[in-house]
Amino acid sequence: MATSSSFNGLTVQTQSHDYPIVIRQSGHLTGDSMASQVVPYIHGQQVLIVTNETIAPLYLQPLQDELAEQFTVAVCVLADGEQYKNQASINQIYDALMAEHFNRDVTLIALGGGVVGDMTGFAAASFMRGVNFIQIPTTLLSQVDSSVGGKTGINHPQGKNMIGAFWQPQMVLADMTTLQTLPARELSAGIAEVIKYALIMDVDFLAWLEQNMAAMLALDLAVLGEAVKRCCQYKADIVAQDERESGIRAILNFGHTFGHVIETHEGYGNWLHGEAVAAGMVQAAELSEKLGWLSADEVTRVKRILTLANLPVIAPPIAVETALRLMGHDKKVKQGQIRLILLKSLGNAVLTSDFDAQLLTETLAQSA
Amino acid sequence: MATSSSFNGLTVQTQSHDYPIVIRQSGHLTGDSMASQVVPYIHGQQVLIVTNETIAPLYLQPLQDELAEQFTVAVCVLADGEQYKNQASINQIYDALMAEHFNRDVTLIALGGGVVGDMTGFAAASFMRGVNFIQIPTTLLSQVDSSVGGKTGINHPQGKNMIGAFWQPQMVLADMTTLQTLPARELSAGIAEVIKYALIMDVDFLAWLEQNMAAMLALDLAVLGEAVKRCCQYKADIVAQDERESGIRAILNFGHTFGHVIETHEGYGNWLHGEAVAAGMVQAAELSEKLGWLSADEVTRVKRILTLANLPVIAPPIAVETALRLMGHDKKVKQGQIRLILLKSLGNAVLTSDFDAQLLTETLAQSA
Repeated sequence: MATSSSFNGLTVQTQSHDYPIVIRQSGHLTGDSMASQVVPYIHGQQVLIVTNETIAPLYLQPLQDELAEQFTVAVCVLADGEQYKNQASINQIYDALMAEHFNRDVTLIALGGGVVGDMTGFAAASFMRGVNFIQIPTTLLSQVDSSVGGKTGINHPQGKNMIGAFWQPQMVLADMTTLQTLPARELSAGIAEVIKYALIMDVDFLAWLEQNMAAMLALDLAVLGEAVKRCCQYKADIVAQDERESGIRAILNFGHTFGHVIETHEGYGNWLHGEAVAAGMVQAAELSEKLGWLSADEVTRVKRILTLANLPVIAPPIAVETALRLMGHDKKVKQGQIRLILLKSLGNAVLTSDFDAQLLTETLAQSA
Repeated sequence: MATSSSFNGLTVQTQSHDYPIVIRQSGHLTGDSMASQVVPYIHGQQVLIVTNETIAPLYLQPLQDELAEQFTVAVCVLADGEQYKNQASINQIYDALMAEHFNRDVTLIALGGGVVGDMTGFAAASFMRGVNFIQIPTTLLSQVDSSVGGKTGINHPQGKNMIGAFWQPQMVLADMTTLQTLPARELSAGIAEVIKYALIMDVDFLAWLEQNMAAMLALDLAVLGEAVKRCCQYKADIVAQDERESGIRAILNFGHTFGHVIETHEGYGNWLHGEAVAAGMVQAAELSEKLGWLSADEVTRVKRILTLANLPVIAPPIAVETALRLMGHDKKVKQGQIRLILLKSLGNAVLTSDFDAQLLTETLAQSA
């Protein structure tokens, strides 16, 4: 998996096939509709659009109508929220496919955030052992994170993303105009993942974000488009080296082991994923500081950029034992040893189990 | 995917990795246990054995005990039968994995027939987006068919194998001694698939079967081992050319489109899969005769070898319209056109939609 940039977007190369991420910044030009962007990537005559109750009233109708001129189009509208990222929702997708008698030639289109994308992707991976799908991520979080890299799946009652597959889309349409209807809180949650890339990969991008955070929050679509493009490039470059997450790809989970504890403990959907990751990144930075890798000033800089983005920097109170137990279910655990992604310096993350467990306990105790 | 033979078995080469099919014909030698055969292919410390209520009392305990000397071993015992090849059973496997806090290093072992193998394989494909698994097929059907080729999955209420993945095992242990406890009816059902290979690929193998059918039914393990090895070789050679079934692999479904109609109409589990395929192969042969490709004598030869194996050669009564409708859900349907695997001659199958629909109707009407 690697990338090359050409049109407004980039091409992702994976083991199975190459696909483009198209970044759309304006919907004002004739012929520049969502539908016109995805049509070239639909093979066959059957399309199932999967979306949710929040996104459907905003973007479904024009997409559906325009595609229906050329294809047999069916729609599956799911309930909105992480708490519905489960087998019941996947079954709604399967049932819609079966009801239409769709077959291996169907293309699924995920129109929505990461939850819709992950579930649609897993349904595509598993319906008839694999059919095509297209991502139209409508949240910043999904544009910079879940829509790239081929991870798909659902939650198990005892753990997030425990059931899923690696399955690559035919294309990703990151439509900046959809961010205009995104609630401010969700925009910020997406920015948490943008900040993550700066912290793990590129301190220069951190400086860029410090300068451009106001413009992002003010929905400057050009600035947002630039941020999305950079993040997709970072992610594609990492995933290129490690598509199935046996090594370096794990650094993309910076803040996520701590964040998963928060999400699981508070109940999926009460803390937004990006909010949990934000507070989790602070915990990871604090542990990095205890190990002598970050200075106090650098941890403050991490907290400041998150605060600028209106994100939480303090985890909710969770007993240390509870947190450690919840980490035991985390996929980053290898042979019973807790492995964490920590910062050697700003812009440089490592996956390590080489730390004093006591320091982890102390870090967790700060919010216990 | 291709094969090479060396030890008593063969090596299957796939896009993801190579793996051996080991054929075990005797359990009398010290150190030649099931467990000793699979141990070299278990990485990590965690093992979940998935089996069913019928097989568990026969083969579980020694395998479990011997593996427990080296690994953390958990067991998941499913209900027995095609009607349990569903999401509820898959959830039992996920729940067992979660209860043990098993992670990406787990190896799943499928100890049972095709239903256990398909479900365990799909659980392995989808747990944490993919973990290792080993097949110990304990029915002839699964030894010659489902354990080779990487197809995994479950049924949807409206169609067989509608949900699944392509996922290759680390090894397959085809243990002939397990056939000694297989009910005669299931042995015959497995032989249906053995006969299938002869009909689609090799008329000389058909002659071999005509000579050796009595020995197979009398549980001559050397003859059965030879038949299994030949069938695995045929299947691996076909799958090598077409791992994801975009072309030639479809011929392995000879008799299956008709057979699926029988299974679906009669309810999963009432007709054994192999029995439905047997009657379905006769229907496919009869349609081939109507097209002028087979002689009446050749159709009689097909019926005779199936009858020798104590298999049904007449489909149950199903209205033609019902059968055609049920075919509409079949995965072999492309763009609404029914495509069937038919015989150009004995030992030579083709996938075609180039036939008069009226002849299909007449064929179905013979048992309506």
